[in-house]
Amino acid sequence: MGKKTDMVLSVADMAGTVLFAVEGAMAALRGGLDLFGVMVLSFATALGGGVLRDLLIGAAPPTALRDWRYPAMAFAAGAATFTGHALVGQVPVGLMTTLDAAGLSLFAVAGTEKALNRDIPPFSAVLMGTITGVGGGTLRDIMLAQVPAILRVDVYATAALLGAAVMTAAIRLGVAPRYAALAGGGACFALRMVSVWRHWALPTAMGLPG
Amino acid sequence: MGKKTDMVLSVADMAGTVLFAVEGAMAALRGGLDLFGVMVLSFATALGGGVLRDLLIGAAPPTALRDWRYPAMAFAAGAATFTGHALVGQVPVGLMTTLDAAGLSLFAVAGTEKALNRDIPPFSAVLMGTITGVGGGTLRDIMLAQVPAILRVDVYATAALLGAAVMTAAIRLGVAPRYAALAGGGACFALRMVSVWRHWALPTAMGLPG
Amino acid sequence: MGKKTDMVLSVADMAGTVLFAVEGAMAALRGGLDLFGVMVLSFATALGGGVLRDLLIGAAPPTALRDWRYPAMAFAAGAATFTGHALVGQVPVGLMTTLDAAGLSLFAVAGTEKALNRDIPPFSAVLMGTITGVGGGTLRDIMLAQVPAILRVDVYATAALLGAAVMTAAIRLGVAPRYAALAGGGACFALRMVSVWRHWALPTAMGLPG
Repeated sequence: MGKKTDMVLSVADMAGTVLFAVEGAMAALRGGLDLFGVMVLSFATALGGGVLRDLLIGAAPPTALRDWRYPAMAFAAGAATFTGHALVGQVPVGLMTTLDAAGLSLFAVAGTEKALNRDIPPFSAVLMGTITGVGGGTLRDIMLAQVPAILRVDVYATAALLGAAVMTAAIRLGVAPRYAALAGGGACFALRMVSVWRHWALPTAMGLPG
Repeated sequence: MGKKTDMVLSVADMAGTVLFAVEGAMAALRGGLDLFGVMVLSFATALGGGVLRDLLIGAAPPTALRDWRYPAMAFAAGAATFTGHALVGQVPVGLMTTLDAAGLSLFAVAGTEKALNRDIPPFSAVLMGTITGVGGGTLRDIMLAQVPAILRVDVYATAALLGAAVMTAAIRLGVAPRYAALAGGGACFALRMVSVWRHWALPTAMGLPG
Repeated sequence: MGKKTDMVLSVADMAGTVLFAVEGAMAALRGGLDLFGVMVLSFATALGGGVLRDLLIGAAPPTALRDWRYPAMAFAAGAATFTGHALVGQVPVGLMTTLDAAGLSLFAVAGTEKALNRDIPPFSAVLMGTITGVGGGTLRDIMLAQVPAILRVDVYATAALLGAAVMTAAIRLGVAPRYAALAGGGACFALRMVSVWRHWALPTAMGLPG
């Protein structure tokens, strides 16, 4: 990617980190955790997906530990949410959903790109993009002793999967990375927003024996 | 191992993957998860043990990400179970138990062999074989917010441990790998089947203070 | 560090491993787990923090798998607790708390040192020290399907964090490693003990919306 795209991506990446950290902190506060718990869930929600991906593709130590700005941002966002949670609670749900969809799209695309750059096969790169997007929220839910939300409800992980798949396919077809990223991120964002708007959900199986 | 043994092992490995994926999908369906949750638990149950082992022995990226056939099989088995769960529910319990014991034996032996091949010390190689066998089911239970079944009931992990120990001991005594694998797998399968048949369980401690 | 300090550290490290293993075994017994579950929680509580740290800093396979004495000690402590839990239950709470604080201090300092030795940046080295101290207990709680205690109550992880931060700062200021370790360990131990004695707890946020 060109230098300009890199900077745009980098800024967007940090914005996503801050947003996911705020969401993790809010979940921790709702669960009655103390200040340390809030900080841990901020970190896990914001950076857990990328850490998992880096461990899986053999890129340890993960970026979140090599570049101090990522944990610093996650912790700052967690601390700000802890002190200002009354304000955060007043952000309109629609705005939070939109920002979250943007963060998800960005993480999915960035994770896919990193996996492809390390010669992970396409099929697995799609998985890595999905994990980058939803891994943090999954860790957060496990730490709160809950069944991860992405396994139960909503078209959320599916949107990340679509974005990662579109980007991977575009790269394989020779599209320039910046356009492939745009296409993948756009597909993820669009599917997520439309599914929230139309109340789409994935099918579950009913009438199971046992 | 000879080429023929390799192919037999490889076919058996894939059979174990499919079976564990079906079991993961059934657990997800019983837990009321949606289609995405079913796919995730199929993947985690079938391949989670091997992924954990590969991360621990320093073999990242794990085989499950380098060879697309493994995730493809796990997802195919998950999707088939999602659509055909009524049929799967009709498979006799005895047959499922036998197939599961076979899968467990195979994973335990394959995991031990891989660890030994990477010069992991014998004591740890036994642990790696056990984790390969039971790690997937443990991840599945954690994602369902349950205490992992292997920690609570049954002679299950113990069978994997026995198989891994027998194989490691045989290799150390100079037995050819193919016979060591047969001995280890046979020991695991036998202990598992006998303990199901005789309703054996591990001891728990009673009358605890606090 | 000099050879003598190394040996002192090594002995202390093993003492911490045994103590944490006993605590893990007691938690498993209270949770009604069987013998295998007791062994797994002994291992996870005693060595899980170090394993997580080693995976994160790119030092796989982790020490706990390369040096058979660590798992052997954890399993021996677990087995001893299983058979002698009535005795362990009679150890005065104050003594257990003091020993636990000593183990926490030691793990935090040892984890920080290992991260710094592998050129992990200071900010992340502090995180690694904290994870080494509290990661095992967190894994144990997750396996018991509970919200990790460190996220909810007490000045516990905070003490580990302080110890890791003091040690990192001292090293950066040019203090010799052995004195930096003493300062960090002392700070962790002191904060933990004082907070137990004075019933300190971290703040939680009250009156949350939603």
